[in-house]
Amino acid sequence: MNYTPPIREMQFVLHEVLDAAGTLQGGGIDIDRDTIDGVIEGAGDFCARVLDPINAVGDREGCRLVGDTVVTPPGFKKAYDQYVVGGWPAVDCEVEHGGGGMPSTVGSVIKEMLAASNPSWSLYTSLSAGTYWCLNVNASDALKRRYLPQLASGKWTGTMCLTEPHCGTDLGLLTTRAVPADDGSYLISGTKMFISSGEHDLAENIVHLVLARTPDAPKGTRGISLFAVSKHTVGSDGAVGDRNGVYCDSIESKMGLHGSSTCVLRFENAVGHLVGEVNMGLAAMFVMMNSARLGTGVQALGMNERANQKATAYARERIQSRAPESLRTPNQAADSIIDQPDVRRMLLTQKAWVGGSRLFLYWLALQVDLRKSSSDPAIREYAEDMLSLLTPVAKAFVSDRAVESASLGMQVHGGAGYIIDYGAEQILRDARILPIYEGTNGVQSHDLLQRKVLNDGGRRLKQLLEMVSNYAHTLEGREEMDLFRVALITLAGEIDTLTTDLARWAQDDDLRVGTSAVDFLNLVGYYVFAYFWARAADTVVQLGDQATDLHKQQLAVARYYFDKLLPDTLSLLVRARSDTAILMDDAAIAF
Amino acid sequence: MNYTPPIREMQFVLHEVLDAAGTLQGGGIDIDRDTIDGVIEGAGDFCARVLDPINAVGDREGCRLVGDTVVTPPGFKKAYDQYVVGGWPAVDCEVEHGGGGMPSTVGSVIKEMLAASNPSWSLYTSLSAGTYWCLNVNASDALKRRYLPQLASGKWTGTMCLTEPHCGTDLGLLTTRAVPADDGSYLISGTKMFISSGEHDLAENIVHLVLARTPDAPKGTRGISLFAVSKHTVGSDGAVGDRNGVYCDSIESKMGLHGSSTCVLRFENAVGHLVGEVNMGLAAMFVMMNSARLGTGVQALGMNERANQKATAYARERIQSRAPESLRTPNQAADSIIDQPDVRRMLLTQKAWVGGSRLFLYWLALQVDLRKSSSDPAIREYAEDMLSLLTPVAKAFVSDRAVESASLGMQVHGGAGYIIDYGAEQILRDARILPIYEGTNGVQSHDLLQRKVLNDGGRRLKQLLEMVSNYAHTLEGREEMDLFRVALITLAGEIDTLTTDLARWAQDDDLRVGTSAVDFLNLVGYYVFAYFWARAADTVVQLGDQATDLHKQQLAVARYYFDKLLPDTLSLLVRARSDTAILMDDAAIAF
Repeated sequence: MNYTPPIREMQFVLHEVLDAAGTLQGGGIDIDRDTIDGVIEGAGDFCARVLDPINAVGDREGCRLVGDTVVTPPGFKKAYDQYVVGGWPAVDCEVEHGGGGMPSTVGSVIKEMLAASNPSWSLYTSLSAGTYWCLNVNASDALKRRYLPQLASGKWTGTMCLTEPHCGTDLGLLTTRAVPADDGSYLISGTKMFISSGEHDLAENIVHLVLARTPDAPKGTRGISLFAVSKHTVGSDGAVGDRNGVYCDSIESKMGLHGSSTCVLRFENAVGHLVGEVNMGLAAMFVMMNSARLGTGVQALGMNERANQKATAYARERIQSRAPESLRTPNQAADSIIDQPDVRRMLLTQKAWVGGSRLFLYWLALQVDLRKSSSDPAIREYAEDMLSLLTPVAKAFVSDRAVESASLGMQVHGGAGYIIDYGAEQILRDARILPIYEGTNGVQSHDLLQRKVLNDGGRRLKQLLEMVSNYAHTLEGREEMDLFRVALITLAGEIDTLTTDLARWAQDDDLRVGTSAVDFLNLVGYYVFAYFWARAADTVVQLGDQATDLHKQQLAVARYYFDKLLPDTLSLLVRARSDTAILMDDAAIAF
Repeated sequence: MNYTPPIREMQFVLHEVLDAAGTLQGGGIDIDRDTIDGVIEGAGDFCARVLDPINAVGDREGCRLVGDTVVTPPGFKKAYDQYVVGGWPAVDCEVEHGGGGMPSTVGSVIKEMLAASNPSWSLYTSLSAGTYWCLNVNASDALKRRYLPQLASGKWTGTMCLTEPHCGTDLGLLTTRAVPADDGSYLISGTKMFISSGEHDLAENIVHLVLARTPDAPKGTRGISLFAVSKHTVGSDGAVGDRNGVYCDSIESKMGLHGSSTCVLRFENAVGHLVGEVNMGLAAMFVMMNSARLGTGVQALGMNERANQKATAYARERIQSRAPESLRTPNQAADSIIDQPDVRRMLLTQKAWVGGSRLFLYWLALQVDLRKSSSDPAIREYAEDMLSLLTPVAKAFVSDRAVESASLGMQVHGGAGYIIDYGAEQILRDARILPIYEGTNGVQSHDLLQRKVLNDGGRRLKQLLEMVSNYAHTLEGREEMDLFRVALITLAGEIDTLTTDLARWAQDDDLRVGTSAVDFLNLVGYYVFAYFWARAADTVVQLGDQATDLHKQQLAVARYYFDKLLPDTLSLLVRARSDTAILMDDAAIAF
């Protein structure tokens, strides 16, 4: 057993800290705690029983390109069939497309377990969900009827085709062409790369969402349109027809995620259908991108949980050296390494990142549901503000923490951590893509500081600071919460001052945002995690004698976070103010 | 070309900052600058021409176990033959064994280039060097005559056999047996694992240095003896005879270093010869361990250099997005990403770690030579003090920086960083062992704080602080050096106060050392790098108008280090004082 779904930890976050059912009900979504728990437990069972056992073989065997078909690793197809039969793809899709209509929050919890039990396999499903939602928001009714029920059922899967060999971050450079045909469709030609799940043998059809330029489109990002291009053409009756002009020329050999096919796709006069308006493709795709960025955070959470579970289990079993306080096994020749302070440091750091990520991401998932369903425009707007502000933090901060945690998990294993059989190093290889894809973490930090903070005069950031400070003030007079309260209020003041300074400096210095953005994003990440760990601690403290062992664990990890990890903000506050001229001194890169 | 030996950067450190030739001459070693340069350039040429081109194939093909013989990747054997013919193994071996008698400092520079050009291949050579030196210090004249000329020539290679399946860090638990035979030899039986270069096809014989217990030896580390066991027996005439009872049962599948064979070795009544005294094996082996720990730092430096070279080259070539100050290519559609502040941040961080590592490690290598050769006992003692204090820092801090740098190098590459063909991810996979082997970095930090600092009442640390502060005071009145001077003096005071506090607290708290050790080691690492970057900056500032572009680069990186990286010490100073009770709260690991 490599992964046990942490159902109880999830329930603590969902129900005890965030009151998910109550929040959703307040947002007009008819769901109760038992329903949520039932779905999560069912999905957890599927992940542990079906996906976890084929994770290592997926890494070892990888995908193979045979002709222009990708053969997925042994067991992947069978697991996918079970996933479809179980109705899991449809859980949070709309009822009208055959979906279960469950809130996005429940979908996020399931995504966490999919990514934890088998990160490679889970990618085939996560892009389908993104495709579904992008079409649901942007496509015509005819396209929706054609694609959405098939995506919801999992009968077909989806991809997002943005990157080309010469452009990734800078999509304004893309050159794939879309030529109008007489029947209202378009003929798409060009090469797309790094396309996850671009070709595979799991489903009978694949729907590619492709960014391309129509003839005479303006240059740059204002001339990009979005098209749906399916691997097999689809007749007016919905039946799958001939192969379309989409070919997988090669798949990438990657550091990790070997079971996930990463394809170079060649489009040659492939029949595509416009999604949304001409030249508005980037905005349409951003629905999917933002969802994918949150989803990257959720994947990171899952891999982080896996890393911590493996390391904790190993640290318990491994007997080596005397611990400084050899209380548990004084009669043995040596102690379990879990009683070494430095091993505790590594395990607790993982736990602080895992738990903080879960609190933060589940809360954001609730905002996704409220934004969509609440009847109160103020709640919808607030949710949108928080999501736009914090999506880059969820993508970048949480993914960096997962990479850190995967590396700590290897370190806990000592020499065994470097050996493939033990499964610890695979997590680092799989997780290392997270800070890169769906917009690098550097891009996320720029998005946060420039677009989400400075461009609106700090309005959304102020809302966040107020939410946290208002909460912190409610803790006054409760001695057990002083540690948390004081740190939250102090840090709010420091972030506020820093933001004011950065805004002023950025007026006269083009380099300021780029110089400070990563440190600023990390600072906000530490701050948000502090807020949620304080709320978790608060929840436990209020239980008093009713607190179970799990509750006490949460409180202990919260204290560790404030004591040992939050001090990193001291450095970040200084680093964020570092000199732009020193950073950009061209002498430094002369060689 | 993936790696260009940074000869000019090395010369800057060796000659301009550290005055290596003068220092060595003062230590009684007859060498001049031209001789040093000639050897380094020759070795660099070999690394770039022979080793670098077979680095990727070594990763791709790996080692194979055929019967009980390990077949190394294509090209490895031919490269090894060239290495032997060129006389490179012998460069820093003793003249009486056929060696070149060059100082260890020159050997370190060569090791850096071997590890940078081909980390896997270089492991076959680095353990031979360790075996040579361990035998040279500890073995009888008869054993020396038998083994040392063969190791110096590279005709045979060496290994260190410490780890067993149930014990790595805690060698007191080892169970391999050594039974005395009538002829004065011993019969060795037991299983050793994680043995680098334990079996391979590069050389005609392999000398294993094996830790084992004689019958009735005391328990724990006081009952361990050291034996030399060769793969093939050696006749009294020195000729290679039959296979000895050493068998390679399997080789490990690892995250990286695929071209290096990591073996499980089974010893079955293998004929071995005692090295040094019975039961004194651990002390004898520590000669090799300490050398291997410094060597790990040097490997880390090499891999770090490789990561930075690759990332810098990619950042220059990759055209994507407009840079904030688009000065170089205003007429292009986009700019080179090297002009993005966040890319500069990553490249400069790498350069700061590479350059700081090189300054620090070359200085330590000079101490190795002075310890051995100086006629002045005070100089020898000082060198020994600095080496014992700073070897754990060289191993742990420098290897952590290499892993960080390899990861930053991937990040600079964006999506290409995750693809094997680009060669960036291999560096992270290869480097990730460095914080684990030769004693995990957690073990190093404990060695530093407990054994090297607290156990001698801070004597050696005080010497370091004095050396740095004395230097800093010489900078008074030189405005250009104020930034460096003030930071060095401030940090010395903070480290001094922290050490005093930790010493006091540790008296009553068994958990204090384990709780603070990693942060303490990192603090010393940042401090030592600051000292050496200040000296490098000083060297350039004193050149005035004579400074070349390379000199200006060094000064720019030094300023970046002080401005952007050294502030991390603010966090470390707080983290090092974190609460032992919070860290060790058992509630936190209840699940």
